[in-house]
Amino acid sequence: MFPGSWSSTNARRILWTASNIRRASRNAVSRFVHTSRSSRSAASLRALTPGLVITAGSIVAGTGLYYLTNFMMPLQPILNDSSSIEEPEPFPEGLKCNVPLREFDSVYDVVPGLRKDMPMREKMETLLKFYQQEIVAAIEQADSSGKTFIIDEWSRGEGLGGGITRVFQDGRVFEKGGVNFSAIYGSLPTAAVQRMKANHKDIQIPDNGKLPFYACGLSLVIHPQHYLAPSVHMNYRYFETRNEDGTPQAWWFGGGQDLSPMYYSEADAVQFHKHLKDVCDHHDPTYYQRFKKWADEYFLIKYRGEARGIGGIFFDDLNDKEAEEHFLFVADALSRFLPSYLPAVRRVYEPSNEPRPTPEEGKHWQGLRRGRYVEFNLAVDRGTSFGLQTPGSRVESILMTLPKNASWEYNYHPSPGSLEAKTVEVLKNPKDYV
Amino acid sequence: MFPGSWSSTNARRILWTASNIRRASRNAVSRFVHTSRSSRSAASLRALTPGLVITAGSIVAGTGLYYLTNFMMPLQPILNDSSSIEEPEPFPEGLKCNVPLREFDSVYDVVPGLRKDMPMREKMETLLKFYQQEIVAAIEQADSSGKTFIIDEWSRGEGLGGGITRVFQDGRVFEKGGVNFSAIYGSLPTAAVQRMKANHKDIQIPDNGKLPFYACGLSLVIHPQHYLAPSVHMNYRYFETRNEDGTPQAWWFGGGQDLSPMYYSEADAVQFHKHLKDVCDHHDPTYYQRFKKWADEYFLIKYRGEARGIGGIFFDDLNDKEAEEHFLFVADALSRFLPSYLPAVRRVYEPSNEPRPTPEEGKHWQGLRRGRYVEFNLAVDRGTSFGLQTPGSRVESILMTLPKNASWEYNYHPSPGSLEAKTVEVLKNPKDYV
Repeated sequence: MFPGSWSSTNARRILWTASNIRRASRNAVSRFVHTSRSSRSAASLRALTPGLVITAGSIVAGTGLYYLTNFMMPLQPILNDSSSIEEPEPFPEGLKCNVPLREFDSVYDVVPGLRKDMPMREKMETLLKFYQQEIVAAIEQADSSGKTFIIDEWSRGEGLGGGITRVFQDGRVFEKGGVNFSAIYGSLPTAAVQRMKANHKDIQIPDNGKLPFYACGLSLVIHPQHYLAPSVHMNYRYFETRNEDGTPQAWWFGGGQDLSPMYYSEADAVQFHKHLKDVCDHHDPTYYQRFKKWADEYFLIKYRGEARGIGGIFFDDLNDKEAEEHFLFVADALSRFLPSYLPAVRRVYEPSNEPRPTPEEGKHWQGLRRGRYVEFNLAVDRGTSFGLQTPGSRVESILMTLPKNASWEYNYHPSPGSLEAKTVEVLKNPKDYV
Repeated sequence: MFPGSWSSTNARRILWTASNIRRASRNAVSRFVHTSRSSRSAASLRALTPGLVITAGSIVAGTGLYYLTNFMMPLQPILNDSSSIEEPEPFPEGLKCNVPLREFDSVYDVVPGLRKDMPMREKMETLLKFYQQEIVAAIEQADSSGKTFIIDEWSRGEGLGGGITRVFQDGRVFEKGGVNFSAIYGSLPTAAVQRMKANHKDIQIPDNGKLPFYACGLSLVIHPQHYLAPSVHMNYRYFETRNEDGTPQAWWFGGGQDLSPMYYSEADAVQFHKHLKDVCDHHDPTYYQRFKKWADEYFLIKYRGEARGIGGIFFDDLNDKEAEEHFLFVADALSRFLPSYLPAVRRVYEPSNEPRPTPEEGKHWQGLRRGRYVEFNLAVDRGTSFGLQTPGSRVESILMTLPKNASWEYNYHPSPGSLEAKTVEVLKNPKDYV
């Protein structure tokens, strides 16, 4: 459940020593958002961040992680300071943002056990499982509650594949989230194959009409507790049709990620998109523009003319280069997920001069925005709909994307000029952030 | 918002004088559920219910309302009685269940302004608007809070029709509800017409491919506050395709109603279905069995193998008799809506020896069941999906069906043998109630 303070009439108000903390956190944030490709040593990073404790600990024992840094910054509320700032909620004690900040390191150096000579299926599974673990560990650490993700390993039966569902609930910082890996073997009915052939001419339909396929993916949704913190979604996947002897036939990559703020924050949106543009530009100068537009179209609640959030990137059927090139793109995108998102959650607990809603306003609005998130996932999203209609699909893994709580009110419109109205304005008019 | 007591650890416990109150309320309930066709005068009813104050007041000034009775029974909690029963919530002071109990009275006597010689469009509009007002008045009275339904009259533009949306929020007994009337003129695109022709051979497509149509309906959803009280849905509608000169071509009736308990109550389910069977049997001995089965199929969350509730009736494309006969069936069904539902809400506030959940358990489970309700409406219901995809549709009127609050937890299963588990058991295995 939500901390009791949300429902109390008077929010706990904490006084911060703004000057000290803000300077320290500005340094931390500047590293989160930094997108240059310069190579700085851990020592020089340490020098840049007075007041922060930086350890050289790593999440995964491996080499080649240039910037695996733990930011351990328990912010201490200090009373009686004249430059104090009101804060809706205290920063959870001991919260850590564990963000591995890599700069296009070779994925073969980063991911243990990954080899260039593996078949693509095996490469993708190794990559996705690695990032599943890494993200889970970072979220647990950032939550600071000692709560952990549950593990649900599931199988569809002998030779049909299965998955590893990791779900988190009722933490201090995060309300609900899931990071799901799956790898499925099956056969597609003729109608589905016909639809796919429109985009993939090299698909050959066997005499019996059923086309063997393989699909693997990592699918993530996180809903934080705080109404100022955005929800996030990420999904990267690989699809293969297969000949009867099991060899690959057609293949493609798909994926994307998008950010759903309850309250629009320019800083969060810019940071999120900067990371995505950085990754895209590293692989193809046309990617970011194409995939950003695709996300704006995909993550739209059409009947409301309102986006689910501030977008991100989305792509599907990607197979116009060597598979290895697409694989490296996906690997880089995955490596940037944590730094593109976690700082936006962290910022909520930092002092700010920006206008903020009261906890009552914030909680109320968060419920309504979560309602919109549910609407998109259940009534609009083709992926969810396809999943739920697939016989034998694992409903609980598909619907772990839903928030813990959502609400609806008839014909609710925020007051003109309010923070809520400004957010809706952005959601109705997608813009460029970088 | 919900009364504070839901969230408090210790529920307010009220001691009731069970013997007196139970006797009185048993009499009241027996009249709510009575399905015989005997004709009793208001005087004899009054004699049957000692301890109840019955007024002869009517909701609508009109003649021919044989059994318009107001049940005004403010239950007084009386302390220190040995036969006391624990009650999770006090009966709202002054709650009244205003249930017009009619026994197949002629609709032409009941509904002011309705005439046999009207065109069917006009008859249906008059009927639906009458019951919209009557139901709204009864719900407002039962809520006992003084809160009223808001009125939103809307138009689709000159000659295109519109509607009257009535929405209720944040009452004492009812959390959220809507009772919406609409009457629409438009033209159907070819694809939609082709689908309709499958069931309606007499549809003729004009040269320009666009088929003029008329549709009117009354659509209702009510979500009460209390976790023991069931949500209910009702919808009755009339559809006409039209020749270019405006005269009717093909026509049909559709509709139904279903009950969604959070906690299964045999008494509520039997009463709801008894009223429906009574109405069906009065018009066609095959109706109840056919329409009950249709409801079990329609109100099913397919991917979960779980019904939204305990069903009811559902029918569509009804045109195999004279239009007047179908009209009289719909009129009788509408006349029985309030007595089929309101007593189930009332019973929640009456003393009971049945095992009941704690407020914490109840509220938690209510949230999850509301989540399922949202899933059905957004991911399964063809009516909602059709509405949202129709250009120019009024989204807020369609989505007023959503509950105020809903929640999701990953892979939640109630403990075996619990009240919650028993409810799920019934939802997974539809049964016969009458």
